[in-house]
Amino acid sequence: MLSLYIGNKNYSSWSMRAGVLLDAFAVPYTEHALAFDDFSADGAFKQNIGKVSAAGKVPVLVDGDITVWDSLAIAEYVAESFPDKALWPRDKAARAHARAISAEMHSGFNALRNACPMNIDADLAAIGQTLWQENAALRADVAYLESVWGKLLADGREYLFGEFCIADAFYAPVVTRLKSYALPVNELTLAYMARIQAHPAVDKWVQAALQEQTFVAVDEPYRQHR
Amino acid sequence: MLSLYIGNKNYSSWSMRAGVLLDAFAVPYTEHALAFDDFSADGAFKQNIGKVSAAGKVPVLVDGDITVWDSLAIAEYVAESFPDKALWPRDKAARAHARAISAEMHSGFNALRNACPMNIDADLAAIGQTLWQENAALRADVAYLESVWGKLLADGREYLFGEFCIADAFYAPVVTRLKSYALPVNELTLAYMARIQAHPAVDKWVQAALQEQTFVAVDEPYRQHR
Repeated sequence: MLSLYIGNKNYSSWSMRAGVLLDAFAVPYTEHALAFDDFSADGAFKQNIGKVSAAGKVPVLVDGDITVWDSLAIAEYVAESFPDKALWPRDKAARAHARAISAEMHSGFNALRNACPMNIDADLAAIGQTLWQENAALRADVAYLESVWGKLLADGREYLFGEFCIADAFYAPVVTRLKSYALPVNELTLAYMARIQAHPAVDKWVQAALQEQTFVAVDEPYRQHR
Repeated sequence: MLSLYIGNKNYSSWSMRAGVLLDAFAVPYTEHALAFDDFSADGAFKQNIGKVSAAGKVPVLVDGDITVWDSLAIAEYVAESFPDKALWPRDKAARAHARAISAEMHSGFNALRNACPMNIDADLAAIGQTLWQENAALRADVAYLESVWGKLLADGREYLFGEFCIADAFYAPVVTRLKSYALPVNELTLAYMARIQAHPAVDKWVQAALQEQTFVAVDEPYRQHR
């Protein structure tokens, strides 16, 4: 049985990618939730994750004596471990494309990620409106995001590559950001957002995030409490 | 025949990963070098790369009608295209580990990457000394880097996973940074750096970088000229 170590579901976008992926493909696993704190070296979070992974970050996947950290390496590991499940698209060109946009999400979209940290529970529409007016890099990130999604979704497909795949899991936290901050997006994006939010694996994660009551100050640049 | 679009060899650390990887595994390709400029939307670089990839960044690999961008997606694509060459380690646990540290390089080490941009040609030892004293995040990145490498190299192996693999290609630009900025590192690190610098694929890239004469201001926070 796989073990997945995650952070707070409300805040941990990288954990969400791994958790949604495993659930979406019905991969059995035991969840170990490590509560976020101030991430000091002697705090509970760093002490606990340090027992599992020297990298000191979530998510971490443990499979017997194999420990995999980093969401993208976890995705590749699970894809490889379950070849009968098409975690990546079966078509070579589509798979290359899906890997490219997943890797791009993994290392890029810095303005979006910095200005709009994931906060599933929060209604930050007013903040989002201000950010949108003041932050050109944020607008550029969303414009580029919509161009990436738009080219894929233009033919009416349900998910980015037809069936739900790793790329959709990688962009699921972005969907929650667009929603929390109510960023202005086009109809095609809104429709894809609705499908992602309705996906059972995403919905399961979101509902659990909403039930968390923890307020983590370092993850809340815009609120004083929940 | 594959086509690889790259930037300036002296500056483009992401291009280096892809180029070194293809050369290290003797994968034939045609190189297309696009000179860096100020990266303005109507400048030559963005105009030229835009004809190949909407992502607008190097490296880009083109294989017939398949276009792959992002260094990590390119690495996976090449690994998959040449299953007889062990671009990732053959052992499942080692492969998971190699993917984890490659993905970690891909999205992390921000202090090292920001403070010490790749500049193969430059002797920035004095700058490196100042950075080392003033930048605690840089020291933390290098300490973590040495812990990652150290655990792997402690048994006397030549490369991170024995044979040269994608992970070594991903850390090759880091080796050039440690050298250019003369950051203080331990003996195990110095010995690994020497082996990476002596690897024919790395040496080929470095020699070509040294022959470039272009000075790109946006990539030179510390020099006025070459």
